[in-house]
Amino acid sequence: METLSITPELTLRVEMLLASYADAIDDERYDEWPSFFTEKCLYKIISRDNQRRKLPMGLMYCDNRNMLRDRITSMRSANVFEPHTYRHALGRTLVTDGGDGSIAARTNYIVARIMHDGQTDLFSTGRYEDRIVEAEGKLLFRERVVVTDSTSTDALLVVPL
Amino acid sequence: METLSITPELTLRVEMLLASYADAIDDERYDEWPSFFTEKCLYKIISRDNQRRKLPMGLMYCDNRNMLRDRITSMRSANVFEPHTYRHALGRTLVTDGGDGSIAARTNYIVARIMHDGQTDLFSTGRYEDRIVEAEGKLLFRERVVVTDSTSTDALLVVPL
Amino acid sequence: METLSITPELTLRVEMLLASYADAIDDERYDEWPSFFTEKCLYKIISRDNQRRKLPMGLMYCDNRNMLRDRITSMRSANVFEPHTYRHALGRTLVTDGGDGSIAARTNYIVARIMHDGQTDLFSTGRYEDRIVEAEGKLLFRERVVVTDSTSTDALLVVPL
Repeated sequence: METLSITPELTLRVEMLLASYADAIDDERYDEWPSFFTEKCLYKIISRDNQRRKLPMGLMYCDNRNMLRDRITSMRSANVFEPHTYRHALGRTLVTDGGDGSIAARTNYIVARIMHDGQTDLFSTGRYEDRIVEAEGKLLFRERVVVTDSTSTDALLVVPL
Repeated sequence: METLSITPELTLRVEMLLASYADAIDDERYDEWPSFFTEKCLYKIISRDNQRRKLPMGLMYCDNRNMLRDRITSMRSANVFEPHTYRHALGRTLVTDGGDGSIAARTNYIVARIMHDGQTDLFSTGRYEDRIVEAEGKLLFRERVVVTDSTSTDALLVVPL
Repeated sequence: METLSITPELTLRVEMLLASYADAIDDERYDEWPSFFTEKCLYKIISRDNQRRKLPMGLMYCDNRNMLRDRITSMRSANVFEPHTYRHALGRTLVTDGGDGSIAARTNYIVARIMHDGQTDLFSTGRYEDRIVEAEGKLLFRERVVVTDSTSTDALLVVPL
């Protein structure tokens, strides 16, 4: 297998993928969300404690685009959904060769949550651990593992991070 | 009209403009603020709800450098001004061709507010929607629209975002 | 002395140094912390008020790698240490020629603190004022001054920022 060349241009493309993903979520264009992933994929939200203990439990788990679409559909129809939006602040991405043809990317995030009445709080912090591939002429997530710092995020989680 | 070429170098220059702007505000060098704009310009703070409903109301509105300067002057002389500073965290900027010779730029922000006694809170989140032009040998904002996520920012807003 | 050439590649390398530093702290790989500095170095945390008044008092002060190592050792053995982790969000770095062979770098930060029970708060905001040099084949901090916006951070400070 060819070794991946980590150029400044590749780092920029990866960071633009991450910025576009955050922009789609924060701008409530949720229908775009599945299009950031490959058809077969892994999307998982897990706390750092559970990741460390290798507990399989995640707060959210999807392994293909249809599951991602279903997630958005059920989110929209949930009665309990008190309207709110997110705002992501991302750090710079540490890009390395994933070793299997993918790009490995590691990125800090801080997400604020804004309730409908304007109240804003620090909702979740953590890091993205991504595996990214070139497909359909662009970069897509083959894997996106959201590792949350806090263990108490789950009860509040509706919109994907 | 020439098509704008979005190179990595241009993206870097745009992001350095945004970082310098945030640095000037956060460092209380408010007198520099107008110098980031073209002589005729648009600076507006508006909530995303009002932007969506196309309501003209903004929390702050200036359309030339003199208005920006006046804003700083009146801010300094306001009796009600309880001393505080900001700290910006910016995401990476999505740069596109503005189509009219300008560069269109879209950037997430999270701003913390630090009161004089040290108390720190999450003051405002949202995104910058900018139109940037090359003028006087550097990049300047021809338009800077600050779209706040929250609708309840106005009562507290003194320093520009 | 040669003038330093501030290229996009250098800016990228500097920002990757800062991102790696934040990643090591946030991932609790504290033993790596001293390795980001030159043998003789300056690491200082100081509030912006004290910096302005040129007061020598800092919240933390180390001037060589051994002091940095000691700091980590004492942190680990402190009885009073209620477990918590940090999460950094960094802005883009303004890179200039330090004038003495070093690279001067100025970067906004927002740090969230996550307690063991999951509670998350906005712990510290401010900026890094760095002097960076090429040594041992990589970039290292010769000086890292953490200027905190708030004056009330000290009582809570255990883990380096």
